[in-house]
Amino acid sequence: METSVPGRAETRLQAKILTRLRDAGPQSRIQLSEHFEVSRTTIGSELGRLTALQLVEEIGPAASRGGRRSTVIDLAGRVRFVGVAIGATSVSAAVTDGRLRVLAFERTECDVRQGPEPVLELAMEQSRRLLLKLGVDRPMGAGIGMPGPVDFSRGIPVSPPIMPGWDGYPVRDVFGRQFDCPVVLDNDVNVMALGEQHAGAAGTAENFLFVKVGTGIGCGIVARGELYRGMDGCAGDIGHIPVADSGEICACGNTGCLEASFGGDALARDALAAARSGRSPLLGELLARDGTLTAAQVGEAVAAGDATSVQLVRDGGRRMGEVLAGLVSFFNPSLIVLGGGLTLLGHVLLAEIRGAIYRRSLPLATRNLPIMMSDLGPQAGVIGAARLVSEEVYAFPR
Amino acid sequence: METSVPGRAETRLQAKILTRLRDAGPQSRIQLSEHFEVSRTTIGSELGRLTALQLVEEIGPAASRGGRRSTVIDLAGRVRFVGVAIGATSVSAAVTDGRLRVLAFERTECDVRQGPEPVLELAMEQSRRLLLKLGVDRPMGAGIGMPGPVDFSRGIPVSPPIMPGWDGYPVRDVFGRQFDCPVVLDNDVNVMALGEQHAGAAGTAENFLFVKVGTGIGCGIVARGELYRGMDGCAGDIGHIPVADSGEICACGNTGCLEASFGGDALARDALAAARSGRSPLLGELLARDGTLTAAQVGEAVAAGDATSVQLVRDGGRRMGEVLAGLVSFFNPSLIVLGGGLTLLGHVLLAEIRGAIYRRSLPLATRNLPIMMSDLGPQAGVIGAARLVSEEVYAFPR
Repeated sequence: METSVPGRAETRLQAKILTRLRDAGPQSRIQLSEHFEVSRTTIGSELGRLTALQLVEEIGPAASRGGRRSTVIDLAGRVRFVGVAIGATSVSAAVTDGRLRVLAFERTECDVRQGPEPVLELAMEQSRRLLLKLGVDRPMGAGIGMPGPVDFSRGIPVSPPIMPGWDGYPVRDVFGRQFDCPVVLDNDVNVMALGEQHAGAAGTAENFLFVKVGTGIGCGIVARGELYRGMDGCAGDIGHIPVADSGEICACGNTGCLEASFGGDALARDALAAARSGRSPLLGELLARDGTLTAAQVGEAVAAGDATSVQLVRDGGRRMGEVLAGLVSFFNPSLIVLGGGLTLLGHVLLAEIRGAIYRRSLPLATRNLPIMMSDLGPQAGVIGAARLVSEEVYAFPR
Repeated sequence: METSVPGRAETRLQAKILTRLRDAGPQSRIQLSEHFEVSRTTIGSELGRLTALQLVEEIGPAASRGGRRSTVIDLAGRVRFVGVAIGATSVSAAVTDGRLRVLAFERTECDVRQGPEPVLELAMEQSRRLLLKLGVDRPMGAGIGMPGPVDFSRGIPVSPPIMPGWDGYPVRDVFGRQFDCPVVLDNDVNVMALGEQHAGAAGTAENFLFVKVGTGIGCGIVARGELYRGMDGCAGDIGHIPVADSGEICACGNTGCLEASFGGDALARDALAAARSGRSPLLGELLARDGTLTAAQVGEAVAAGDATSVQLVRDGGRRMGEVLAGLVSFFNPSLIVLGGGLTLLGHVLLAEIRGAIYRRSLPLATRNLPIMMSDLGPQAGVIGAARLVSEEVYAFPR
């Protein structure tokens, strides 16, 4: 009684070939055969199927290594992904090729609290415009990141604290109907971590943390080269870890949470208090000028040398660093990348975070630990979102 | 130009078969063929090789499912592992079968600060005695856990804080020469986590934490079913995460580390102060009786209802729980198992740790999170050590 499940092993090899072409660029048949330790006949037949599916194409002869000449294979020009990054205050969209290189990108200010319909309509409009510009009929998949907890398997937001009206909204299905393609939804820090892994500083890091400091604070975790989501998909929710000597009451009901003492919201609150009390005349002027104070004005005041603003950023950075120091001891990452809106605070913030981590973690865990600002900026999210859906598309070639 | 790397795929299937027999018990040929989705011919030829290596054996006919009758395969009676768990104050050894069931076990009080020669001599003597008793000539492998950081690839301790004289000592090689078999060395919390995974409460948990509260505090991390060691092998070193409102100076030079305010050493220090100051007359009596105070006497005082001792344990448990709450938010595990000497403090400790975790973590991360005491006791370490070396032995059958 022979049992066989036809196609499983072959599908896996096809997925590996597509992923290899995505991450390492064009490969000759010989390179693929050697890399996967299978015969050239096997590679040839799988490439035949992938070519028929218009997923890969030959792009020319390989450099000769003696013997029969090999041809170089690349992902097909038809392979296009949409990546969407919804933030608390902006929406970005990109169209990428199969290797996730951004071919076109748009970013628009937009308050996520407007609710799902107008925000998603904006994201779809951006995407349609970019696809049209590039002459793409139908993307192969769309990935979406959004700033709140997500039920990954169902493609819906789950009680996102800063997104009123979004709870349970069928984000994935709305996008899927619009673009007639597979859609994957995840939270923003997870897709930004994937973006850093694909195109940023974290390319070769097996175990790293992407820490977003924006309106709130969150963390994407990559363990052994793969996104780590935890049991309920909420791993990395570090905004409510308690910090020492803080009595601030948090929106979650506890006192002393990291997010209650640092992040965009907390910084705006503290800056406003400093402006109104007269502790910082400069912040007072900026408030009078702009009618509001956010991290942007604090950044301006820091750049102008305002002592109160510098102190606010330092206090916040130190607390952030102390929480991260604990996570470094626990997780022993090889890299920490900082992203999100508050990275505009620049070196004052980075220096304080670094100082606290290096001071409070064990030497063994920090001796080779770079801590850096993301250099992908707003593109981390869209590239990561495209990567997320590429995993699904490449896993089941059709 | 066909390339082929003979044996790699076969070795992998052999490894998978051995691991399956270890974790799921005896399997019929049909079951193995279906489980691995390969033909019975392939399974048959791999089992033939494993039989020739005396790693597996037939143990009888399978129940009929119609068609040709299958035979049931088990790991061979010749497969025996040694598991050694070196603690701060004890050494344990066991001999297990291929499924890591403990066939014989010994535990002896022993101060690890005596240095490597006498402690390892004791461990090897225990192991030799157990092997002799069971009539085993030569074990197939030996695993060792010890209470300090380990260079896993070199099999040596690295600057272990509580183990003077052990730094760089060739523990693996000394054992390997003695028993003429592969030896693997890791830190104690990692092997205890593996023990829990294999034989304890964590069997089906993909992502869990094993937290040891002994002389010090450490954590073994299992992510996606596998031990997570981090970049430098020091992941889980949570004893130096800062706790709120503690000014205790730690041996590491910082103030407010978890280990400076809780764990066996901290508890003994606080109990001694309470005895000497007269704050706890009962602890004073126990000190006079035994000449010393450790967690054992505190446990006795807690059981007798001594308010000061109960308070010490509660304060410690709360701080422990607050640190774990942060790790729950970060890692989103599906289970936390507590082990180590201080679990003798029982429900007073467990209740306080649970309370702090449930209070301070986000609801989503704790709604299905059991927090329990290990029920393997001192056997977690030896079973985990045996499992650790079984991974290596089964990965390269020979």
